[in-house]
Parts: sequence; C-alpha cells; structure tokens
Amino acid sequence: MKVLITGGAGFLGQKLAKQLLARGSLKDSDGVDQKIDQLLLIDVVEANDFGDQRVKVIAGDISNPELMQQLITTEIQSIFHLAAIVSGQAEADFDLGMRINLDAARLLLEACRSAGHKPKIVFTSSVAVYGGTLPEMVLDTTALNPQSSYGAQKAICELLLNDYTRKGFVDGRVLRLPTISVRPGAPNKAASSFASGIIREPLNGKPSICPASPDLRIWLLSPRYAIESLIAGHDLHSSVLGLNKSINLPGISVTVGQMIESLRKISGDQVAARISVEPDSKVEAIVRSWPGAWDASRAKSLGLKADPNFESIIKAYIEDDLKS
Amino acid sequence: MKVLITGGAGFLGQKLAKQLLARGSLKDSDGVDQKIDQLLLIDVVEANDFGDQRVKVIAGDISNPELMQQLITTEIQSIFHLAAIVSGQAEADFDLGMRINLDAARLLLEACRSAGHKPKIVFTSSVAVYGGTLPEMVLDTTALNPQSSYGAQKAICELLLNDYTRKGFVDGRVLRLPTISVRPGAPNKAASSFASGIIREPLNGKPSICPASPDLRIWLLSPRYAIESLIAGHDLHSSVLGLNKSINLPGISVTVGQMIESLRKISGDQVAARISVEPDSKVEAIVRSWPGAWDASRAKSLGLKADPNFESIIKAYIEDDLKS
Repeated sequence: MKVLITGGAGFLGQKLAKQLLARGSLKDSDGVDQKIDQLLLIDVVEANDFGDQRVKVIAGDISNPELMQQLITTEIQSIFHLAAIVSGQAEADFDLGMRINLDAARLLLEACRSAGHKPKIVFTSSVAVYGGTLPEMVLDTTALNPQSSYGAQKAICELLLNDYTRKGFVDGRVLRLPTISVRPGAPNKAASSFASGIIREPLNGKPSICPASPDLRIWLLSPRYAIESLIAGHDLHSSVLGLNKSINLPGISVTVGQMIESLRKISGDQVAARISVEPDSKVEAIVRSWPGAWDASRAKSLGLKADPNFESIIKAYIEDDLKS
Repeated sequence: MKVLITGGAGFLGQKLAKQLLARGSLKDSDGVDQKIDQLLLIDVVEANDFGDQRVKVIAGDISNPELMQQLITTEIQSIFHLAAIVSGQAEADFDLGMRINLDAARLLLEACRSAGHKPKIVFTSSVAVYGGTLPEMVLDTTALNPQSSYGAQKAICELLLNDYTRKGFVDGRVLRLPTISVRPGAPNKAASSFASGIIREPLNGKPSICPASPDLRIWLLSPRYAIESLIAGHDLHSSVLGLNKSINLPGISVTVGQMIESLRKISGDQVAARISVEPDSKVEAIVRSWPGAWDASRAKSLGLKADPNFESIIKAYIEDDLKS
C-alpha cells in the first residue's frame, strides 16, 4: 500500500513516518494488515527521507488543487492529514489559516472523492474546537464552540470529514489531540508552544519565559503517545466509530505549576529556575478557552492510551529527543 | 438603511420582505431603530416586489463571487441569509448543496469582511445540525452531529459566522429554525416537506401522502412565528449573545399522528381522510435523525416566541395563506 502524510516534514509527521517505517504495515478498511510499499511525505519544505527507499519526499503547497489531484491516486490507500497552520499564526493571519486549515483539507477530500476508491483518512483535530462556557469535564456530547480561528477551522474540517465519510467518499476518522508536550525543536507560533518550551529550553540549558499563570490547566499528551494514537486510530475499523467519527484522545490534565514542579523533581532546582513566569494575556486568552480535561472513555474503550503522568512525559522527551 | 435578503423569492423571504416593509425599520448594531430605505431581494428567480418602491429585485446566483462583491457595499447594513438548497436536494446533489449552502455563505461573509463595515447578518440554521444519538431534550450545549449533507453545511456555516463575528468582520447571529409548517405553495425537495403537505393539501381539497409514521416526533414553528423570530433575532444586541451566536428557536413538539388529529379536529374527518400514511425509509432516515424537541429557554429569555400549539398553526395557515 501507499501512504501519504501531509505536514510530513513537521515534527509529528517525521515521528509518524519513522514509526510507520519501523512497523512496516497498516490495517486497510477491511481490517487486513497491508505492507507499506511507499510512504509519501508532502510539506512546504523537503522532509527527511531517513535514507529509506520506501520514502518519497514532495515539497509543495497542499492548497494547490492540481498538485492534490495529481498526488491522490487510487494507489494511495491511507492518508494522515497533519499539515496545519498553528493556532497563534491562524489567529494572526486569517486568510492563511483558512487556506491551509480549511481549503486544503477540502481539496484533499475532493481529490479522494474524485479518485473514488474510498481511502482511509486520519484527520488531526484539537482541544481548540472547544471553548466558551465549558463544563468541568468535557464529554463527547459537549458542543464544539471554538474561540479561535484555528479551532473553528478544525471544527469545520471535522464536519466535512464526517459528511464525506457518511456519504461513502472516504473512510475517515478524526483524532482530537491534546496539546502535545514536549515537542522537540524550536518554539513555534502555536499559543500552546510554551507547554513544550518550559520543559525543553531549561533541559537544554536555556532560559524560558512561561506566558501562562501557574493555575492554568492543560490537557496534554506526549509525542510518543500521540504517534501511537494516530496509528491505532488509523487501524480502527469504521464499524466501531458509529455516527460520529471524531474521537477525544486520552491525555493527562495538569496545571502549568505542576509541570514546573515535575521538571524540578526530575532535573533539580537549577534547571527549573531557568523558567520565568510572565503571563501574557493574548496567549492566556486562547489557551484558557480550551478544556483542561475531557472524558476520554470512548477512546479508551477503543484501545487508545495516554501517558501515565507528566513526569513520564518529561522522561520520554529526555530519552527520545534530548540527545538527538 | 439598506437591507438584503438572499433567497428573497422563497416563501420565507417573501413573507419576511412583506413584514419588513410593513414595519419600516430595524435596529442597527447599536440598538437604534433605522428606517428601511431599500430592501434588496436576491434569488435565482425574480422575487415579487409588492409594487413597493423600496424594493429592488435582483435575479442572480449568490455563488457568483463578482455578484456578491458588487452587491455587498457598505450601504448594506443588514443581511438576512435565507437562500439554501433544501435537505433532500442537498443529499441528492452533493456539489450543488456545497456550492450554495457552504460556498455562497462564505462568499457573503468574505464580501462583508472586504467591505469592512461590519453589517448585521442573520443566518438561518436548522434542526438538521443535530443527529446521531441524541438526548431526549437537546440543549444549547449538545454537540452538533449532522446526519445529512444539508445539516453538515448548515453546521459549518454556523462555525464560520461565529468566527467572522468573533473576529469583528460582521455582527452575526444564527437562528436555528424548527421545521416550518404550514408552508404555503407546492411541495419541495426538503425531507420535511410533508410536515406542511399533510395539512396544506387536504385543506386545498387534494390528497396527500404522508411518508412518515404517526409516532415520528417533529419540532415545528409556523411561518408567522418564524418571521417574528427572524426580525426579533436580528434586532438583538450582540452583547446579549455571549460566546455562542447560535440560538435554538422556540417551537412546539408534536408527532405526525397528533398533527393529523389536529387537522381532523379543525376541519373534520373528510379533510383528514385525504391523508394516506405510507412511510418512506429514505425520508424517515433523514427526519428521524433530527431532534423532536430542544430546550429553547435561552431564546425565550431573549424574548423569542413560538406558537402555543399545533391547532393554532393550522389556523394561522388558514388565515394567512389558504385564501390567498
């Protein structure tokens, strides 16, 4: 089978690609394991191909209709659609967010529909689809009420994917990801960028400004479990998804203060002292609109899992990314 | 002020136009009454102008970007966006539904954004945004889970309108309409067309096939109260709408059997005998996915109202439309 990852040069795309290459197969729509013959990574920049002959790297714009039509042939049996403009940037540049987060997703769905072979698609969505006045525990039945353009665009894509799936154009599923921490690499324009930065930078000997108050509660997942969830979510049979293909993934609920204390416990006072808490109302306005926790019992009943606690997330970062 | 009604030749558009002309004013975003100097009615066919000099009729396609840019000048202070491809037709012709129900709505919002004057916009949404496994009473906080393309397109427009409003591009509000009964005129391709037909046709001496079982529960509103709600919803100040601009309008909850019995009570056995109940699984699949009732306490607290009962709906049809 051929597998396509959009946003394939991003950190999740690269980790997913590595894991898929190691694993070598995915389940098709009938639940049968299929060997991965080719893995296409598309992104605005050239992705790393890990020197693996199965990888084909494409640098291109996913909001280009011709490119998408060309790319999505009947040979592409599975698609992981990870490409996105992050929350802070989509809020600052409305048109760019609409073009990549909404229009490109629709082009992808239309290209699949026109190819006509009903590929599996995994869409990643986000805590940002929730907002406004939220119950203490967000349920699967809680209304989406995004308070950012990023969240609105993700929520719209969820509706599109659900309808394209209901119509039989694709075999889709939406995985709503918690905020991912600890992301390796540089800070980005996501409002939640600090949720990685306050751990990553101190561990790398650098200072980090934390723009959120210690009481702010966040719903988190490590990159390791995010990748596990993407693959396990892909492999689910459509029949277990019922009438709503959007799944709230398991995560852990911690406050910013607890995150800092976990770092102190693992790496000591000197490392934790590299964090300066300087609340920024713009960042807080976005991140506080997201749920600090949601009920993930549906996902758990489908076999999806999260990290046991935040300390294990820090340890996973140290093992997987700090030395690399 | 200039007011635009899309779908202005439709039955709701025409009734709304008549009512606005009689009333002569609407509240602007500051809550100040403004005289209506011009009422633009756009539709694919030429609307009736009622011989009123304030009315300007435009026959055109609202999915034409140039036309929408031309139409939406800074002089248009209020827009009622009623144009839509109805549920049954949007299900049968996916592309047409997407073009009119989604793309045209987005063009409208973009034209407003580019004009830059933040007009008031009333979007009509529908019971069809709900679906799947529903609680007995749908609440404002119940997740949208449309099971038709029409419902998905309406839900997407709700998200767009909410985000364009949050960003300050428009002063928008979404009114989720119950199924409207009794619509005058001919049957249409809405899955809910029968909810008018089973009353209208017998009262006009014609037979009517009812494709729904007597136990099917529907959430209804008369055209009279729908128009009242559209105007009252328009006139609400944005500050009372909070972080979610979508309002579940009041209605009444009746079964198909109760509707038939109400007709019998008002017009006698002979009239009611013109209905033949012949359940159609395709119609039922769509209509059963919609809530038979929702909690409208938010709308009621904002002063919006519904018919007292179904008999008064039949009487309103007889008064307003049967003789005309």
